[in-house]
Order: sequence, then structure tokens, then C-alpha cells
Amino acid sequence: MRNNINNLLNPKSIAVVGVSKDVTKLGAIIYNNIIDSGYEGELYAVNPKYEELFDKRCYPSVGAIDGDVEIVIFVIPAKFIAEALKEAAEQKGIKGAVIISAGFKEIGEEGKKKEEEIIEIASKYGVRILGPNCLGFINTSIGLNASFATSSPPAGDIFFSSQSGAFCTAALDIAQKKNMGFAQFVSYGNKADVSEIDLIEYALESDDVKVVGSYIEEITDGQELYNMIRKKQNKPVILLTPGKTEKAKLAISSHTGSLAGSAEVRNQALKQCGAMLVENMNTMFNLLMAFSWSPPLKGKRIAVVTNAGGPGIIAADKIITEGLELAELTSSTQDKIKASLPKAASVVNPIDVIGDALAERYAAPIGILGEDPNVDGILIILTPQLITQIEETAKLIINESRVLKKPIFAAFLGGKYVRSGVERLYDHNVPVFDYVEEAIEVMAHMYKYYSFEREASHLNLSIENVNVSDNTRDEVEKIVTEEPQPLPEKLVVKLAEEFEIDVPRQMVSNNIEDVVNFCQDKYPIVMKATTADIIHKTDEKSLYLNLKTEDQVRKAFNELQITIARLKDKMVDEKNLADILIQEHIVGGEEIFVGVNRDGTSEVYSNPDDRGFGHMVVFGKGGIYTEVYKDLASRLLPLSRQGIEEIVDATKVSKVLKGARSSGTLAMDKVYDLIDKIQSMVISYPEIVSMDLNPGIVTDDRAVVVDLKVFVQK
Amino acid sequence: MRNNINNLLNPKSIAVVGVSKDVTKLGAIIYNNIIDSGYEGELYAVNPKYEELFDKRCYPSVGAIDGDVEIVIFVIPAKFIAEALKEAAEQKGIKGAVIISAGFKEIGEEGKKKEEEIIEIASKYGVRILGPNCLGFINTSIGLNASFATSSPPAGDIFFSSQSGAFCTAALDIAQKKNMGFAQFVSYGNKADVSEIDLIEYALESDDVKVVGSYIEEITDGQELYNMIRKKQNKPVILLTPGKTEKAKLAISSHTGSLAGSAEVRNQALKQCGAMLVENMNTMFNLLMAFSWSPPLKGKRIAVVTNAGGPGIIAADKIITEGLELAELTSSTQDKIKASLPKAASVVNPIDVIGDALAERYAAPIGILGEDPNVDGILIILTPQLITQIEETAKLIINESRVLKKPIFAAFLGGKYVRSGVERLYDHNVPVFDYVEEAIEVMAHMYKYYSFEREASHLNLSIENVNVSDNTRDEVEKIVTEEPQPLPEKLVVKLAEEFEIDVPRQMVSNNIEDVVNFCQDKYPIVMKATTADIIHKTDEKSLYLNLKTEDQVRKAFNELQITIARLKDKMVDEKNLADILIQEHIVGGEEIFVGVNRDGTSEVYSNPDDRGFGHMVVFGKGGIYTEVYKDLASRLLPLSRQGIEEIVDATKVSKVLKGARSSGTLAMDKVYDLIDKIQSMVISYPEIVSMDLNPGIVTDDRAVVVDLKVFVQK
Repeated sequence: MRNNINNLLNPKSIAVVGVSKDVTKLGAIIYNNIIDSGYEGELYAVNPKYEELFDKRCYPSVGAIDGDVEIVIFVIPAKFIAEALKEAAEQKGIKGAVIISAGFKEIGEEGKKKEEEIIEIASKYGVRILGPNCLGFINTSIGLNASFATSSPPAGDIFFSSQSGAFCTAALDIAQKKNMGFAQFVSYGNKADVSEIDLIEYALESDDVKVVGSYIEEITDGQELYNMIRKKQNKPVILLTPGKTEKAKLAISSHTGSLAGSAEVRNQALKQCGAMLVENMNTMFNLLMAFSWSPPLKGKRIAVVTNAGGPGIIAADKIITEGLELAELTSSTQDKIKASLPKAASVVNPIDVIGDALAERYAAPIGILGEDPNVDGILIILTPQLITQIEETAKLIINESRVLKKPIFAAFLGGKYVRSGVERLYDHNVPVFDYVEEAIEVMAHMYKYYSFEREASHLNLSIENVNVSDNTRDEVEKIVTEEPQPLPEKLVVKLAEEFEIDVPRQMVSNNIEDVVNFCQDKYPIVMKATTADIIHKTDEKSLYLNLKTEDQVRKAFNELQITIARLKDKMVDEKNLADILIQEHIVGGEEIFVGVNRDGTSEVYSNPDDRGFGHMVVFGKGGIYTEVYKDLASRLLPLSRQGIEEIVDATKVSKVLKGARSSGTLAMDKVYDLIDKIQSMVISYPEIVSMDLNPGIVTDDRAVVVDLKVFVQK
Repeated sequence: MRNNINNLLNPKSIAVVGVSKDVTKLGAIIYNNIIDSGYEGELYAVNPKYEELFDKRCYPSVGAIDGDVEIVIFVIPAKFIAEALKEAAEQKGIKGAVIISAGFKEIGEEGKKKEEEIIEIASKYGVRILGPNCLGFINTSIGLNASFATSSPPAGDIFFSSQSGAFCTAALDIAQKKNMGFAQFVSYGNKADVSEIDLIEYALESDDVKVVGSYIEEITDGQELYNMIRKKQNKPVILLTPGKTEKAKLAISSHTGSLAGSAEVRNQALKQCGAMLVENMNTMFNLLMAFSWSPPLKGKRIAVVTNAGGPGIIAADKIITEGLELAELTSSTQDKIKASLPKAASVVNPIDVIGDALAERYAAPIGILGEDPNVDGILIILTPQLITQIEETAKLIINESRVLKKPIFAAFLGGKYVRSGVERLYDHNVPVFDYVEEAIEVMAHMYKYYSFEREASHLNLSIENVNVSDNTRDEVEKIVTEEPQPLPEKLVVKLAEEFEIDVPRQMVSNNIEDVVNFCQDKYPIVMKATTADIIHKTDEKSLYLNLKTEDQVRKAFNELQITIARLKDKMVDEKNLADILIQEHIVGGEEIFVGVNRDGTSEVYSNPDDRGFGHMVVFGKGGIYTEVYKDLASRLLPLSRQGIEEIVDATKVSKVLKGARSSGTLAMDKVYDLIDKIQSMVISYPEIVSMDLNPGIVTDDRAVVVDLKVFVQK
């Protein structure tokens, strides 16, 4: 369990260590920001050089302060902090500390040691640490700006936290422009202690927060973040987590000293737990604004009111491509709107009030659409035409938005001329955008958020191992090392058997008479070399398909023995090359792919220090088309049956399985069972770091695994 | 050939018909805008009610004016215009007219007649008409604002035209905010005469234009627009053409009285001729700004200089996902930059000058990157941190951009605080954006534009019919009607033969002995019913595959005869059900799809009044996966061999054809030949409105068409 960070963010008393006379220095800026923000708790300046600063007493150390000190803000060089922190913890029993100073993990090995030293002290004395290498925080709920940000945002219900300090300053500037109100605004820097997880959890539990945004460069603990967000599900969480490309990862590692997790796993996991992932700052702030200011958009039927046809068409296009719908207005709505507008106006959605509309002409349609049960949200478009009343129209929209229970979004197209209207809308907390596309993109995000199935019932939260034989476990564990290792085919077969995975009946043998005997009731037959070193079997002429007679089997066996002997010389490890596998040939059916990749180490389920998300299953089209079409869907495990069905449905090959054209439905239940068995296997064997099942063949009564590769790693 | 619109846009004298005393009325606004814009030609007010207006003489009619009148601007009710136009044309020999007034095609049948009447007069007297139902135009090159727009943009080198008047007003407002300069700005409304094609052609031929933008709701003539842009290729053309969804089309038809063309054909054709298609206003104006202000971005290697790590990562991500590259700096560049920056700065791209950077710290890296041959373009990111010098940094960027030959783009993140810097950059024509993603998106468009293969050599511009037999042509023509009609299978076979398309050897027969005789050297055999009414043959048990012996053939033939007899009762048209088709069964290989759709009528190649783009060929994966994966690429015909190869390469199935895994390369040449033959067929028979070839089977030596359906229409 994480300790509460309530004291840290809501302190009754603060000491700032490292305040100086110079008002352009960080210490003085923070000290004065705290005063200027109207902080009502006790505030102390600490600096042994001064007895008085800014007309108030200055203390030589935290220990020298008479009253209680709940948190300390350090703005002194990194090398002095450990000592000062220890003293403050021992002598004043502080609950938290904010370390503004840089010079820690981000500068390399030396700084990393300093950071570890601080964490050791903090955990010994139960002090929560924000930073180091951060801007500090702002908590408007208690009137406190404990940061060196140049401006403080208005009070409000947005919680925002950022690993990047620069992102914070830009964000505050955007927020100020749009008059967006924040409850808390936290820069968490190196997150030596307090992480994005603590902060998001705090925000989700806080009554004064309506929407949560966070900029995260690397996830502290995937499983924990995933489970925490998934269990709460009580308010929108918007995340911006860059670093999805390899090159971008390098940039991360050079600037924060930590590695980005596997981006694909991370993105899928965060989506799966109900968070909204955005790709850029613009969308982040548009969403924070919309969720903060607007009532929920609970359906996808959007009505548009515009004073210009062109932007109306663009809106209609975008509404549909974003997965929303143009509301079909009731005939009563259409009649009423018709009566209120000039003859030339269009009363079909998008409603065109025409270019000569004064503000008043928008009133009737908005009011009428507000009453129409077929309309879930309204978008008002204004273009600055000859007699358009920019500010009057803004006022009217503000008034209507106070009365209606539905979201009203505005798009005021233009620049200088429309600015007065835009600013008025910002000032009265009506979401307004520069372009219709932006407004609709935000509506689409909002609709997806409210229509996301939040009941976690279909997510199987408990992880239960099936009983596995000690003998197999021993064999697997013997192979596990720090590097990924393939399991030998025989062990794979054994595992498949234990988990009741349907495989072609088969044998491994070097004796042709045994082989012929085995084959007699199983034609047609496939024969191949069992070796992990020959991955692309078809490249090596070591695969024989569709053998229909004993003669064909004898001939293939002979050739294969020769091939193996030839390849033997090239192999480093001879034992990988020993055998020949004889198998039923599964005819017809559809080829599928099932894969598993593990994020983090095998301790991911048991060790809280592990930082990965765990196992991700991938399902899709198998065979030669796997690489060509990449028709794959992925989900973090564990999954309930419903979750399994969803992942299959998310692929295009599911249409074929379910009977595209007249081939009829294939054994869907067997496909779901197969994924479930794979799930049991990897959860029982967290050592499985990667698994490739390709192809599986789905016929009308089986889902047979033809080729299965398993890799294990510590 | 289109007549020149030079006189219309560059008049030496103008009469405004419908000026009144009331300065809030359109006539007076336009008249005064012309005066205020400093127009140096002759200007006359016309209104029989006044003898003097705004201290100048007012004339009772255009005919009454003493001097020459080159163009007339009409701001009188629609019903009076035809008469007034005729008089002006007869008496003053005017070259052009701008009809501001509404009340034409957009209001329905009555208005449409008025519009036709005007066009008749105009073409009789050789008068070019802009509008009706438009804002007018602005030509800064001659200092003329002949519109009722509330503001006039600065002079510059952008040409912009818009079908939507409201889009114009919003655009002018955006342009003013960003200080974007325009050569001409034209609102063309109903485009009764002057169309987007005239205007874009004018812009492409004009020396004072560097970049062309146009908002188009429907294309006047697809073939003409396509050929015009493709042949010129001398400057960037950016198009915004909404209406890609069915619902959006309805919106278009209700507000402009015309139908949107098939969106997919349109988009493909416009891309293929080298125009840039954008999806929203924001991108349109970002691109116009960038192409107007920046030197060309000729490569894709981007260097980033930032004062904040987070936005640097976001930039790195976006650069890669947009298809650009993070420039790999030479070691000399890295050394030089290292020497110029503090120790903590990152000298690997993205270059992080760190949060405490003053303006001066940006100078060295920008200068050094300017010299690095590995860098094609530079992105400067600024976040407003504690001591960041917003305006000073802007000034420095402005100075550097004057010296360097490479594009420098800036992203100033924030709102109010960074505004002064942003405005300074706008004022000095340095492209600056609110978000890094926007800047990079624009760079990607720019790179794609400059790397587009503009030499039209690989596009086969001439349309040559192959010789087709009169007999087949007669048969086809007999079937053509106003509605799409399928060609009977026999005729399809005949066409395939004429164009030397490889089909399985086959016969159509109702005589089992003939069938058995035909089959004897062709096993395995496919047998099916030849009927257009049984489209999904496998649904009807009328398809027999892989028949290997005479017995199997006899049995299948017998069953099929019974099925046909049974189905006969359900058929409206008995003749569709007559026959049984016997065919070679092509074994193995990869299934492909080739389709053709025609945009416009069969007169598209010969009749200038036809408005379509012509034939579009679609190539991709065939068989049951066609619908599942929609792995299809399309190109407008005609195509050279290179164009044909490109369309194949654009699909994923081409990887399989070229030998994914070890299956080896299939008969690629035969695939190209097949598409070329299909091309010849549809160009020889423009009556072909649609064609479906699915599947074609590609083996290692053939591309065999197994199923071919052809529809014709007038």
C-alpha cells in the first residue's frame, strides 16, 4: 500500500530551505509565490546567512524553527540535502519534502547515489518526497502556490501532474489563456518517491477533482497503475505518454536516466483499464477543458448549428469519421426550427441559420435541440461574416449552456476578429475551439469515455494458477536464465498436454519402423525437423507436407535424416538437432495466430519492485498472412471469457471464423478455450516471456495448434 | 479551352451596380472597400436613384458611364441582373462581371433558370462571370479589394479561392491573425461560369503566386482538373474538399444544389496528380503559411533544438510516425554544439539547451545545424520557463532564418505568455505553431510535396483504344442502358479473348458427352452454373471444385442440371439460367482482385460537359479475404507500366506475390500485363461502368482470371 500524500499536498506549515535576498533566485521566488498565493498556514524561510528576509524572521535551520513544520521545500544544492532532510525529519517530524534542486538521477551515477541516500532517509522517517528536479506544486484548494511557476492558474476542478517541468510551464500558460481552473498542479520531476501513481490515486480520491491529466515519461509500476485506475473508474483520466518509437526512447534515456517501457503494451494496458491516451498536448488540454466544463456527453448523436454551409459540411464529415452520428431530428423539432428561421435556412442537421444571422437567430434552434430526445450534444459554429455579432452570440451561447443539461460546444472560426467572443466563452467556461474538427474530436473522446464499459465484471481480476506438475515445473525452471531461452520441443509438447491444448497427434522418433507404425491410421502426415535453430522451416527444406502413403513417409524420413546430418555441422549446440517429428496433417480450416509477450520480469505478479505490466496476449490471422496483414489484437492478461471473446472479435479474421461467405461458422468455442488455456499456462508459468503459436488451425470442430514455440526468461 | 480570367481579376475599370447611400449595405461596402484598398483604376457607382454618392458622380446605368468599363460588380436583386448584364455587355463591351447577389441555383429550380439565362448572355458576349452568390475577390497585386469582406489581408504570394463565402471570411480572419500575405483571394460562390479549375489554373500561371489553396465542395470537371494540375506541377496546390461521407453529401446537396462526386475517386485522383489534400482548415492554413514563408524542405532529416526534454520526446515520436527522420548529426556538429552548450545539455538530436537557456544559447546550435549536411530542416521548441526570453528568442530565430537556406520552423508552447514571441515570428514570416505536432505535420506534408515524383513520364497521358471487333462492340452496345447492366458470361468470355486475358480453358455446354470429351486432358475440373443471378455461387451449391475423374464430372453435371431446373422457377429472366460452365481448376497460387469503377458517364473521355474523373482501377487481395482485409489500392486510369507496378506495390498482397517466406516469386509480369489488358478493355469500352475480377489466381507462370463480371452503363 502506498502512503497517503495528503499532508504533502495540504500542509499546515511550510519551511523553505534556501531562500535568499535575490528575488530572481528560485528560493525567493517560491517563498514569495507562497505568500502571494494567499497561503493561510505557517511559512518559514531558512538560510543561515540571514536573520531576516522580506521583513520576516529567517531561521538558520529547520530545527531552529519554533513552531510545527509539516513540509520542507529544499532549494539548496543537491549535496546538502540529505543532511538537511535528516535533521528536519529527526527534529521536526516533517511529513513531506519537496526537492526542487536538480543534480540527482538525471546527471548520472553520482546523482543516482544521492537520490538513493535521500530515499533511504525518507523511508526511515516516513517522509514523502516530491521531486527532486521539479517545479514544486500548486494547490488552489488551500490557496497555495509552492512552485516557481511564473503564473498560478485559477482555482478549479482539474488535477494535473507532469514528469516534465517544462511541460508544466507551457501547460500553465495554455491554462491561463483558456481560463482553465485547477485544483492541484504538480510537477513531480525524478519521482524518487511520489510517482504518477500516487498522484493519480490522490486525484481519483479527491472530492474537489473532476478530471485528471498526467504527462508521464515512464510508468513506475505497470500492474499497479493498471489495477488502480481499473478499480476506481470514477472520473476521466487523460494520459500523455510519449516515447512510442525506438528513437524517441533514446531521447528519454538521455534526459531522464530511465528506460521507456514497451510502448505497445503500455498503450494497450492503459486503454484497457479505461484511461484516455492522447497523442499531443493540444488534445490533452482540450479534453481537460471539456471534461471540466461540460456536462457528460452520454450519446453520440450530435446536432450542429452553423451560420455557414461549408464548415457545416466539414463538421458532418468529421462527426461520422470520428464514430459519432449526425442526430436525426424529430419532425416536431424540424417544424419548430423551421418556424423560427428564415425560409432559406436549412432545418436538416447541420442546421444552417445562414450568413446574415444575428446572435438572436441562434437562440431558437439551440433551445429546441436542447429538448429533442434524439440529440445528445450540440455544436455551434460561428464564422465571422459581415454582420455577425461575435460577442452577442457568445453571450447567448453562455446563457443557453447554463439552462441546458446537454453539452454545448462552440467553434468560432477565425483569428483576431472572433477573439473577443472566444475569450468571453473561456471566461464563462463554455468549451470553445478554433476549428470544428477539434471540437468534434473532443466530443468523440468524451463519448467514448462515457460509453466505455466500466463494470470490470468481464475482467478477471484474480490470478489463479492451475495445478501444474512439479516435474514439468522443474524442467522449465532448469532452463530459465537471465536471457530468453527456447523450451525444447519435447517440453513444449508436455506443457501443451498438461494444459489440454489440442495438438495434432504426433511422435518424435529416429526409428523409421516406429514411424510407419504410428502413421498407419493417421494419414495424411506432416514430417519435420524438431529444432529451435531452424525457425523458418520452409526455408530449409526440412518440412514435408501431405504425405499420404507409407512409401512417401519412408522417402521423406530418409531425406530429412540426410538434411539434419548436413545441418549438424553448422550448429553450435548439437542437442538442438536430434529428432524428427511426425504429425497428423490438419487439412483445411482457417489459420490463426496466438502470441504472448511479457512486460517486466517473471516476478511481475509477486514482486512490488517489478515495473512491468505482465503478460499481453496477441490474437489474429496466422500462417503466411500474419506478417503481411498484421491482423492482430492484443489484451493484457488476465481476461475473463468475455474479454477473450472481445479480443477475437477485434480482429478481421474473426469474420472468416464466424463464417464469411458460406464456409460456415468454425469452432469458435475451441478458439476461446485455446486462448484461455494459453492464459492459464503463462500465468502458471510467469517465466514464459514470449510464446508464438503459429499457425493454429481452426476447423469446424477443432482449434489445433500446429506449431508452438515457448521462450522463458527470469 | 478555357478563356482567360485575367481581365476579370485585374480590371482597369470597375462599375458597381447597386451602390446606395446606406454604408451598411453590401453595394456601399464593396464600393468603399474598392476605394479604401487604394485601387488605381477607374471606379463608377451605378444606381438610378442617385446623381451623386460619396462625393462622386453616380450613374443611372452602366451604359450611361462615359469611360471604359472592364468589369461590373452586381449587387442588385437576382431578377434584374440578366437585363443589366446584357446592357453592359452590349453597350460597354465588358470583359467580366462579379455577381454578389444570391437567389440563383442555391434556392432551387427558379433560381437555376435565372442562372442559366445569365450564362447564356455571358457566353454570347464573351463575359466571364464570378459568382453568383459570392463575396467578390481581393487582388492585392493591383491593390484592389472588390469584396464585402470585413478585412483585407496583407499583400503576399498565396492564392486562395473558396466556394464557401463563410469559409472566406473565417480564412481572412485567420490570415490576419497570422499576418499571412495573399496575392489573390477569390470567393467563387455558385461558380456558374468561373470555376475552381479556372482559378487554380490562373494561380499556377501567375508569377506573383507561390502557393495555391482552394476550398472546393464539388469538382466541376474531374478529368480537366486532374490533367491541368498534373501537367503544370510548378507550385504546391492544397485542396480541402469535404463531403467524403454519405451523410455529408446530403448536407452538400441541401446547401449548394449540387451533388458531391464519389469521394474515394476524387481523393485518389487529386493525390495522383500531385495536389495535397488536407482534411481541415487548420492544416490548410498551416500549409499555406509554411509554403509561402519557408524555403523548400527537400529531405526528411529533421533536427530539433528545445529548451525542454518532454516536448523534445514528443517531437521525436511525431517525426518518426509522420515518416520523417531524426537527423543523425555529424560528429563534427556534435563536437561544436557540445563546446557551445553547458555540460548538462544533450547534444544528441533532439538537442536540449536546458530550461535555463537565454535566447543567446539557441544561436550556436541553430547556426551549426544550418551547416550540417545531414540536416534538412530545423525545429526550434520553446517552453516558457522561469527565465526564458520569449521575444529575444523570437528575434534570434528571425535573424537565423534570414541567413540559413534551410527551413526553420518554431513551436512556442503556451498561451498568453508566449504570445508576444509568436506574433513577432508571424510579423517576420517565420512559420510558428502552437504545438510541436502541428509543426511536424506541416514539415511532413512539405517533404512529401518536394519528394513527389513530378515527372509525369510514368503516367500514360494519351488514351489509345486497341482495335476491337465491330461485332463484339455491337453486342456490348445492345446491352448498354441508363442503368448498370451485367454482360452475359458468353460475351465476357469473348471480351477476355479479344484482350488476350488468360482464363482457364473452358466450355459452356448442356451436353454431357461434349463435356467429358473436353475434360479428358484438363483435370482437375471446376463446374458451375453460368448465371448473373447467382452471385455468391458457393451459397447455392452450384459450384463443384476439384473434379478429378470422368465419374465425378458426370455426377456433378447431373446434380447441377437438377439445381438449375429448381432455380429456374425463381428466376424472372429465364435466359440467365441456361448453361453449365466447365473449366480447368487452377491449383495453388495466390488469389488477387482487380476491379474497375467509372466516375461519370461513358462520355467522360469525349464530352467536355461530363464531370467525372473516368475509370479507376482497384487492385488487391482476392478470394474470401477481399472483403475481410480490404487490401486494395486504386489509381485513376490511364497508367503507364510504372504506374501499374506502383499500384501493385501499394498492396500488402504484393509481398506474397513477390515471395513472402520461401514460396518464391510468382508471375509478377503476368499480373502487370493483366492490369494493362483490363486498362485497354475499359478505355476501349468506356461503357464499362464497373468490373469485378475475383479471384484471379497468380501461379509461378500465369495470372489466370477465374471469375470476371462486367457491368455496362450509358
